Amino acid sequence: MTNWEVIARRKRESVQNAIPEEWLVPDINKRMTEAGYINSKLYIDTLVPSQEKKITDCTVLELSAKISAGQLSSWDVCNAFCHRAALAHQLLNCCVEIFFYRALDKARELDEIFARTGKTVGPFHGIPISLKDQLNIPGIDTTIGYVGYVDIQAKKQSLLASILEKNGALFYVKTTVPMAMMAPETVSNLMGVTLNGVNSRFSSGGSSGGEGALIAARGSLLGLGTDIGGSIRIPAAFQGLYALRPSHGRISYMDVANSYVGQEVVPSVIGPLATSLEDIELLTKTVVESEAWKLDPKVVPIPWRDMSHLRKEKLRFVCNVMDGMVMVHPPVTRALSKVVNALTGAGHEIIEYDFDHHKAVLNLATKAFTADQGKEIEEVCNLSGEPFVEAIKPLVGYDPNEPPISVEEWWAIGESKSHLREKFFKYWQDTAKQFSDGKMIDAILCPVWPSAGFKKDDGNYAAINYTVPFNILDCPSVILPVTLSDKMIDLPNDTYVPVDDFDEKIHNYYDPNEFHGMPVCIQIVC
Amino acid sequence: MTNWEVIARRKRESVQNAIPEEWLVPDINKRMTEAGYINSKLYIDTLVPSQEKKITDCTVLELSAKISAGQLSSWDVCNAFCHRAALAHQLLNCCVEIFFYRALDKARELDEIFARTGKTVGPFHGIPISLKDQLNIPGIDTTIGYVGYVDIQAKKQSLLASILEKNGALFYVKTTVPMAMMAPETVSNLMGVTLNGVNSRFSSGGSSGGEGALIAARGSLLGLGTDIGGSIRIPAAFQGLYALRPSHGRISYMDVANSYVGQEVVPSVIGPLATSLEDIELLTKTVVESEAWKLDPKVVPIPWRDMSHLRKEKLRFVCNVMDGMVMVHPPVTRALSKVVNALTGAGHEIIEYDFDHHKAVLNLATKAFTADQGKEIEEVCNLSGEPFVEAIKPLVGYDPNEPPISVEEWWAIGESKSHLREKFFKYWQDTAKQFSDGKMIDAILCPVWPSAGFKKDDGNYAAINYTVPFNILDCPSVILPVTLSDKMIDLPNDTYVPVDDFDEKIHNYYDPNEFHGMPVCIQIVC
Repeated sequence: MTNWEVIARRKRESVQNAIPEEWLVPDINKRMTEAGYINSKLYIDTLVPSQEKKITDCTVLELSAKISAGQLSSWDVCNAFCHRAALAHQLLNCCVEIFFYRALDKARELDEIFARTGKTVGPFHGIPISLKDQLNIPGIDTTIGYVGYVDIQAKKQSLLASILEKNGALFYVKTTVPMAMMAPETVSNLMGVTLNGVNSRFSSGGSSGGEGALIAARGSLLGLGTDIGGSIRIPAAFQGLYALRPSHGRISYMDVANSYVGQEVVPSVIGPLATSLEDIELLTKTVVESEAWKLDPKVVPIPWRDMSHLRKEKLRFVCNVMDGMVMVHPPVTRALSKVVNALTGAGHEIIEYDFDHHKAVLNLATKAFTADQGKEIEEVCNLSGEPFVEAIKPLVGYDPNEPPISVEEWWAIGESKSHLREKFFKYWQDTAKQFSDGKMIDAILCPVWPSAGFKKDDGNYAAINYTVPFNILDCPSVILPVTLSDKMIDLPNDTYVPVDDFDEKIHNYYDPNEFHGMPVCIQIVC
Repeated sequence: MTNWEVIARRKRESVQNAIPEEWLVPDINKRMTEAGYINSKLYIDTLVPSQEKKITDCTVLELSAKISAGQLSSWDVCNAFCHRAALAHQLLNCCVEIFFYRALDKARELDEIFARTGKTVGPFHGIPISLKDQLNIPGIDTTIGYVGYVDIQAKKQSLLASILEKNGALFYVKTTVPMAMMAPETVSNLMGVTLNGVNSRFSSGGSSGGEGALIAARGSLLGLGTDIGGSIRIPAAFQGLYALRPSHGRISYMDVANSYVGQEVVPSVIGPLATSLEDIELLTKTVVESEAWKLDPKVVPIPWRDMSHLRKEKLRFVCNVMDGMVMVHPPVTRALSKVVNALTGAGHEIIEYDFDHHKAVLNLATKAFTADQGKEIEEVCNLSGEPFVEAIKPLVGYDPNEPPISVEEWWAIGESKSHLREKFFKYWQDTAKQFSDGKMIDAILCPVWPSAGFKKDDGNYAAINYTVPFNILDCPSVILPVTLSDKMIDLPNDTYVPVDDFDEKIHNYYDPNEFHGMPVCIQIVC
């Protein structure tokens, strides 16, 4: 065994060892299979005490209400999620750092404060929030999928973590990521593969796959992911969760570890994944109202804007079923139709999406992601001697024989991006001409992914067509769970004529039986 | 004569030819000297009809009030400024495009609208606004200081120009810039040197030197400049004007020509120069209220914020007299003291500025500005065969034998910038500890330039120490005219011990007689 393998094994063991013995379940995966489960949430439900299940089946808002009414203690809430996260990790391999003791100690402190003052310290008083392994917590590693970063403990806490902590949040785990966060699945030499929390035969997606899996298993109700090409949205979609990819500059990324730090043309953004839309809103509102722009120069000073008046208004949408490159699978088409029908039924107006620069947008993304030909990742791999993870090679365009591009070429990418964004803004404005009331669209409805996930070893069926454009165009996007794949309804479309080989490959990947029961989400892009 | 010289001469002649014959004054510079003037404003006052002088001595707000009261026609206002701009150009060489006829035609249209409706079309109804030669007006060249761009007419109008035009503004001239806008003085092979409007023995500064000179001569009351290292602030300071370098993303740069398009680490910003602070505010407010963010993806959607309540509040300032690298001249020290005394006298609190990373900030700026080793400029020079202008070599680090840096090195610059900004934001927050009321500072008071300008051929005495940091840190900065150099008061400081050779060189450059009468401005940085 080489040195990096020893370090990686030690890391995995240390994660396992951080789980209290009474929560360890030997051969848990075998047991789950034998019990006939593929959904880790449902299986864990059979393992935990009912009072814990009652807690973890709530939303954050519901728990928050109970805690502030004195009906639940922070410690009980925290303990329930720690237990469940421990089980979820054993099933799905979704945590890279486990530090329950910190959260439980903090929970006890919060209970004391509440007992003394009768007040909670903030909307997240006693709520455990899971963190993608890019957020820094002093004294804990931030390895972002690299063996070479093991045992390098963070010194400074991420500003976002501090904001949430100030509002009462408890931190108890950090969740797995693929090497360098550069894949739509979660795999690294350090931690191996993270499985899907809804269907453990499937990939958890990525790069916030650890978050997606953990929340799907209800080992967390609310977690933070990051997104440079779909990394929040893909795991959320693959596991039927709500999520938000905010615009760049809306939520503080300060002191959050990252790849390609200083790469500002296609910036990674940070945002929540959750089991309810209200919890997404609560987190976002709390963070925005913290006025992080006073400390983080990259946060734009835009206060929280109440948009509740929109609930009563007639809205306008464009809907994109096919981007001209990759046709989506029948369950995704049906999910979109379902949303379109519901909206038109409620009096909203919907037209077809026809912004026709998606190919250029995708080409630009490829140029940006491959700009250094994988040099940075190679350098970090060299720290430990671990190999370049295969799954991330396509996205970063790894080529050991090519030098990084020059600054001039990089600026040209920046310029192209601006032009594409300008065209997109103009498209948005021009939609006004197509609506009866002469107003422009409120949002775009579109797929997140051509299929309802992909199987654990099928990373070569990945197509980031529907997520990446909104990173380049920098649009906020909400992930909305709509339905489940149903083999009885979602029959293969045998008449579809693929536009090219890749489209055909994705088209042929659809198997009603394999996908049966997989959640289907759509994006609502603003 | 080589080909590029022919093109450049033709361009200069065409500018001259765009001036109506009755406004041409042969040997105007000789006449001015013989008449004993160095200040072009004062000299032009002797050449124009008094009713024109009465117009050009107003502010925009005053003219606007008269126009909307029917006391002045747009055409009269426009004609007065065209005449004066024609004289200013003959004296100072400050215009690169003259198109009076368009403005006068438009003024007549506006007068008709006013006659018909009794209403103005916007706050700039009939007001001529001068444009730095980066703003695009369809059908007119945008040469940004290059011979190679002559006769390439702009197709699409800058969004900012359209916003102002919609509000009634008239466009009549575009003003000179140094090659590529990369010098704190205004010199190009295309147009030669632009002289200072207050003292024609001095440089107009740069890169918005054409604007500074034209407004100083009252050939314009309000113009648009750009600033990547001080290019708005330096000409404003050298000519005793008000100006604003807004934050990045506040005023639309869309479809404005530029060097290094796509270079987003130290972005150039666009902002106004004017003869009054109220006019700066009027322009900024009008532009912000146009909600350009709906069309320009780079504009942040922050509405205009009324800050008039600050007039009644006790404010806190830090004051920086010396950045540790280049000591300022006695007139600048006095200007700062004058402001500090006035503020403390009015009950405001002022402490010393001690953010000690200015050297790192300047080093970073140098790295960013020299990243492509002058390659882009070289390529554009090659279009016409013109030589690389000497004055811009230091700033862009021209080295024909060095390749541009790699994208990895560029990202490292981006990362350093972010860290410096974070430190600066923290510094700003921490000032709260030093004030009696525990609140943080409202603004920084500091010099714009070590001296009150420099003489026309003394570009080697340029020191951008005091302007560049606020480009890197991206702070809005207002230029405030405070006083004039006075040989009787501003005596040389013979006891000062320079910190190094460059500091000594700048220190020794002070000559009370040469600088006598030169305006002194300070920066107010937020």
